[in-house]
Amino acid sequence: MLRRYFPILTWGAAYDRAALTSDLIAAVIVTIMLIPQSLAYALLAGLPAEVGLYASIAPLILYAVFGTSRALAVGPVAVASLMTAAAVGQFTSQGTPEYYGAAIALAFLSGLILLGMGILRLGFIANFLSHPVISGFISASGIIIATSQIPHLLGISASGHNLLELLHNIIDGLGGVSIATMLIGLPAAAFLHWSRTRMKGWLKARGWQDRAAGTIARTAPVMAVFATTLVTFLFGLDGWGVAIVGDIPSGLPVPTLPPFDPGLWATIAVPAALISIVGYVESISVAQTLAAKRRQRIDPDQELVALGAANVGSAVSGGFPVTGGFARSVVNFDAGAETPAAGAFTAVGMALATVFLTPLLHYLPKATLAATIIVAVLSLVDLGALRRTWAYSRIDFAAMAATILVTLGAGVEAGISAGVLLSLVLHLWRTSRPHVAIVGQVPGTEHFRNVERHAVVTAPDVLSIRVDESLYFPNARFLEDTVYGHVAANPAIRHVVLMFPAVNAVDSSALESLEAINARLKDSGVSLHLTEVKGPVMDRLKRSHFLQDLTGRVFLTQYDALRHLAPDLTARTLAACRRETQRNGGQA
Amino acid sequence: MLRRYFPILTWGAAYDRAALTSDLIAAVIVTIMLIPQSLAYALLAGLPAEVGLYASIAPLILYAVFGTSRALAVGPVAVASLMTAAAVGQFTSQGTPEYYGAAIALAFLSGLILLGMGILRLGFIANFLSHPVISGFISASGIIIATSQIPHLLGISASGHNLLELLHNIIDGLGGVSIATMLIGLPAAAFLHWSRTRMKGWLKARGWQDRAAGTIARTAPVMAVFATTLVTFLFGLDGWGVAIVGDIPSGLPVPTLPPFDPGLWATIAVPAALISIVGYVESISVAQTLAAKRRQRIDPDQELVALGAANVGSAVSGGFPVTGGFARSVVNFDAGAETPAAGAFTAVGMALATVFLTPLLHYLPKATLAATIIVAVLSLVDLGALRRTWAYSRIDFAAMAATILVTLGAGVEAGISAGVLLSLVLHLWRTSRPHVAIVGQVPGTEHFRNVERHAVVTAPDVLSIRVDESLYFPNARFLEDTVYGHVAANPAIRHVVLMFPAVNAVDSSALESLEAINARLKDSGVSLHLTEVKGPVMDRLKRSHFLQDLTGRVFLTQYDALRHLAPDLTARTLAACRRETQRNGGQA
Repeated sequence: MLRRYFPILTWGAAYDRAALTSDLIAAVIVTIMLIPQSLAYALLAGLPAEVGLYASIAPLILYAVFGTSRALAVGPVAVASLMTAAAVGQFTSQGTPEYYGAAIALAFLSGLILLGMGILRLGFIANFLSHPVISGFISASGIIIATSQIPHLLGISASGHNLLELLHNIIDGLGGVSIATMLIGLPAAAFLHWSRTRMKGWLKARGWQDRAAGTIARTAPVMAVFATTLVTFLFGLDGWGVAIVGDIPSGLPVPTLPPFDPGLWATIAVPAALISIVGYVESISVAQTLAAKRRQRIDPDQELVALGAANVGSAVSGGFPVTGGFARSVVNFDAGAETPAAGAFTAVGMALATVFLTPLLHYLPKATLAATIIVAVLSLVDLGALRRTWAYSRIDFAAMAATILVTLGAGVEAGISAGVLLSLVLHLWRTSRPHVAIVGQVPGTEHFRNVERHAVVTAPDVLSIRVDESLYFPNARFLEDTVYGHVAANPAIRHVVLMFPAVNAVDSSALESLEAINARLKDSGVSLHLTEVKGPVMDRLKRSHFLQDLTGRVFLTQYDALRHLAPDLTARTLAACRRETQRNGGQA
Repeated sequence: MLRRYFPILTWGAAYDRAALTSDLIAAVIVTIMLIPQSLAYALLAGLPAEVGLYASIAPLILYAVFGTSRALAVGPVAVASLMTAAAVGQFTSQGTPEYYGAAIALAFLSGLILLGMGILRLGFIANFLSHPVISGFISASGIIIATSQIPHLLGISASGHNLLELLHNIIDGLGGVSIATMLIGLPAAAFLHWSRTRMKGWLKARGWQDRAAGTIARTAPVMAVFATTLVTFLFGLDGWGVAIVGDIPSGLPVPTLPPFDPGLWATIAVPAALISIVGYVESISVAQTLAAKRRQRIDPDQELVALGAANVGSAVSGGFPVTGGFARSVVNFDAGAETPAAGAFTAVGMALATVFLTPLLHYLPKATLAATIIVAVLSLVDLGALRRTWAYSRIDFAAMAATILVTLGAGVEAGISAGVLLSLVLHLWRTSRPHVAIVGQVPGTEHFRNVERHAVVTAPDVLSIRVDESLYFPNARFLEDTVYGHVAANPAIRHVVLMFPAVNAVDSSALESLEAINARLKDSGVSLHLTEVKGPVMDRLKRSHFLQDLTGRVFLTQYDALRHLAPDLTARTLAACRRETQRNGGQA
């Protein structure tokens, strides 16, 4: 029990010098990658840069204690930062203490939601998010984030609640571009893009080993930070309109409690739930990918506890919502992280940076951070998924396209909400029409097949329906409609036989429908029979009045039912079969 | 096409004198039943009594034009009236023009929602309401309604937003009971209860024929109205504290438009949607019950159009939300209504009552109407359903109990919303764990069965999983978890075989999961195979990259797969089978 909630007890007991070495190396690489990212994502969330550093200390240590993934690197991520800005921005304006307080409250509430879901083992709730919705949402968020950073690259100020507003304001602001900012921002973006796509190959072509080349390429953001900070400092570019990060308070965060304001908490409840679920889904899929590569297991419910603890930890140490990041976790994995201790060591690195490095970041241009964000998020945009989904399923394409359009046009909260709602409605629509087939007997056999696809025989007064799905409330009424439709259309029917070989469950609503079918058919002089009912379904039906009230019988097989209800038919097809067999010289 | 949207064209063409006679008789009986009910439900909704009459004219005519049920009697009903009071009451207080305007807007909006759902053929959305939720909700509403009428019976005034508040206020008010009101109200309630349960038998024992006895018993509410009105008038009981209906404006309703106030519409949007769906579900189940008795069909999507038109009609003629009523429809059916024209004739009867009868209703005691409501709604309360559902399914019991408790404790809107949400979450939880079984070969056969239930053999390096459910986003991740769990637990596994005989569909999310399983197993040196994939699923998979990327193969049967992947095993069990067969002297 204790080990389930504290996975550190399991891996910690076996911790040795080899694991320590691997974890330390991974931690150094991840720390170097995380410093510029954490500053950048804090600015994206509309918060002071140091908040990004704060959100990269306590959460990492807490994840190391509670997490089950050996390689997941927790911290600020792009999409959650954008969602934070959207949620808090509707409440108050950036730069105020209320804004910062609301971001802390958002992390706290989101952490409580994740913890609650984890303790109640409600991880399945993440299934609300279908793949087309999450994929469309992340692509659209990536586009919004990248666009929102263009002004920083150009040295203008422009913002907006959706893509059109943003683009409109950027175009309006184009007159005021700062040449000095562009001279910093555009080369930085080009260099970072090159470092992502070509730097490793370029280094390898110059004789570097694969592993070393990869590691150097990953330090590109830090190189960009260093170079642009130096240039800005040496040439005093901040006097030429280059926005700089400015004074960052150095020192570790002071423990704090989120503001307790019921009105605020009510306002941010829905965004907090959305951030929790989106963050969880992103995180769990990275964690599963990496765990499977080494045949390790993660526990999805315990991951909720771990991410919940990380977010509560972020809040009480002055940070904002965090989750497992994709690129960062892959780097951690590739760098050889063997246990969650790598994350704890990264936290130590970030703490050292917070104490000693912050004065050096004074002249860091915001344009460099914007370039970091743009290059990072564009890799999230996968519009090719639209084409692939269109080819595979029109319904899923509709869900994905709607999520993208609403996210771009009306913002992240509306987008993800519309996506969740739409995928639920589409799922309900799909499952509300279960596959059912009218079946007839394959002549000369005991087999029954769909009358529309096979040459089969049926008795005129017996309607046999095979149900190919479990019966739940979303499809219970469809079965009623189907039965009534056939019985009303065909006055000769005297028996309805429901064939249940694929029915794994019958819930109360479906039981009610079966009872209604039985009672209504009785009124019109038709009896109802069941065949091939699975054991667990039969056990459950026995706990209701249905079997007592049933006007017909429950047969073990469909053939038994037909032999009983339409002896003529089975005798006829049996005779036909005998003749056929004799003609072929075989035995019946 | 025209006939689909105007069913009147179908039944109207065959309309004859016999149908006219039957419909007229039914209309007279329903009109007599509807007059006191419509007044009572208007008061329950917090509206002037005449609004109930208005809501019983235009809607009935419109339903006759658009409806597909031959027997459904549309008009004010108890639950929708309670929901109206709850929705409008949070916006403004009873007796004001704003309150009446909001009730009209509620009917209008609810009508638009139903019409929209009907035209877009979204009837399946009603499936959101599982049977335990609707049953629990109606029982709880019945309890609240009955309790809310007790003060009228006692001549005190007490109200409340939930049951506890209501009971508390009733107890507080007990000191001020009006003896005269009780002398009217309690005997009326007793008489009405007796008329529902025993009057028919009592009349038959005195020599009346079955049909006549039933008809007379149904006029009991009108007798109660007549008798108590007369007594109140003769003895001037209104001077002794008996609340009377008072002046009712006579004459037909004046066409009106609902107030167009965006703030109001936004406030009532959710209640309007809830009233629409609850009303539709109640109505459709009555309509289906009655249609099945005569082997008739109703069209669920067209019923949305008809109820939508009825509600828009109610709004523009000064009425409030209406739907198909259970008791009234059964009376209409029993009285012999053959076509929806019976409803139109009822509307004429109600119009005549509105013009000529209203002056006579001046001295009608409100206590009589309260007694009518109490006796009618108590038949809706079915607490035995709790016991039956508990016996059948604990999960469904939880949904029902929660709906009842929230409805009683926090009101109708919270109750139905909680129920819908809970049934969706529970459904998702249930379907997120599809039935999967690890299978092995039944020795000597080509059959494969669950290893936990049968004596089967398996190859150490082959994991065969049979999936007993279609793969959709709610259960896609579960399959991933299952596969990774087994592969991580058993390092000998080199092949994973997914057996798909019961998989009717694979959506994009599940495709993504299959691709992820394939890629992750590849990383750990395990290949993935599929067997017994159905034709439509295979066709769809061919439209993706999955089959190209698949590390293993797609086999027609599970036996083929095992013969290929574990030839030793199949040869061994074949040899065992041969020995077994030889020992029994048979042939292999």
